[in-house]
Amino acid sequence: MNAIEAIMTRKSVRSFKEQKVTDEQLEQIILAGTRAPSGMANEPWRFAIVKEDNVKSRIAKLTKHTKVLESADALICLFMDTEVGYDVVKDANTMGACAENMLLAAHAMGLGAVWIAEIRKNKEQVAIECSVDPERYDMMVVMPVGYSDESPEPTPRKRTLDEVIISRK
Amino acid sequence: MNAIEAIMTRKSVRSFKEQKVTDEQLEQIILAGTRAPSGMANEPWRFAIVKEDNVKSRIAKLTKHTKVLESADALICLFMDTEVGYDVVKDANTMGACAENMLLAAHAMGLGAVWIAEIRKNKEQVAIECSVDPERYDMMVVMPVGYSDESPEPTPRKRTLDEVIISRK
Repeated sequence: MNAIEAIMTRKSVRSFKEQKVTDEQLEQIILAGTRAPSGMANEPWRFAIVKEDNVKSRIAKLTKHTKVLESADALICLFMDTEVGYDVVKDANTMGACAENMLLAAHAMGLGAVWIAEIRKNKEQVAIECSVDPERYDMMVVMPVGYSDESPEPTPRKRTLDEVIISRK
Repeated sequence: MNAIEAIMTRKSVRSFKEQKVTDEQLEQIILAGTRAPSGMANEPWRFAIVKEDNVKSRIAKLTKHTKVLESADALICLFMDTEVGYDVVKDANTMGACAENMLLAAHAMGLGAVWIAEIRKNKEQVAIECSVDPERYDMMVVMPVGYSDESPEPTPRKRTLDEVIISRK
């Protein structure tokens, strides 16, 4: 898939088929995430892959989007390593860039994914379910991944380009 | 350019040729940015396009990366509209996803770009140079855009996939 087409047609997918995703696919998505730029080149991204049904179910109960997580074949949990982080906003920018690369890679590979941030209200419990130190690893996003069971139409944006370009010099 | 190839070969470009970029190219890059997902679908991204040499020079002096900004034909300044923002980390994640789409689009279009965050130390002054309200618009990133005058080799990452995948369940 062409890069611009991938960016323009990507959409958040919240319902998945039962078809399995492979470890190789998940690792390709994560590798794409690591190609994001990072402030001070600190590469603060860390990942947990969750495929076991019992762990997935427990994490699913930590968000109001339970069915989305349960429907996906796998979850990738994105953590920011606070031992290398240096700035709340800049590290969060970096993690967002990483997550976007992952969403685009999944889309280009014929998979669907969505970025769940509401689960941050229970970020420590997500870390514990992944057996990582919740003090060190700040859980930013849980990304369910699978084969899309939705319409492929991307969601329209609320604002036109003229509305978001607020200055020209 | 293929989407995965774009993600894997994108690099930060800090030196540019004198060749001009068009408004259409800059608007295509911004449009790509607006295709990022956003928390609560708040679409908090706002953009300023800077092409005038005198404004570009004054903004360039607000960062230690003066020569990078001066070398680029245009700057796109990314602002987060605090009137629609709802969470410091989640909005910064969203803005990072927006910026990554822009970097990828520029790369896929044969252009080079880089994300300058260090200039946030003078974010109010950047807003004033763009004639936007520094109280309302939180300047996150300045992105110089132009035709690359650098080696096309992407920067290797410090950590292997095994080092960043910290858990498998």
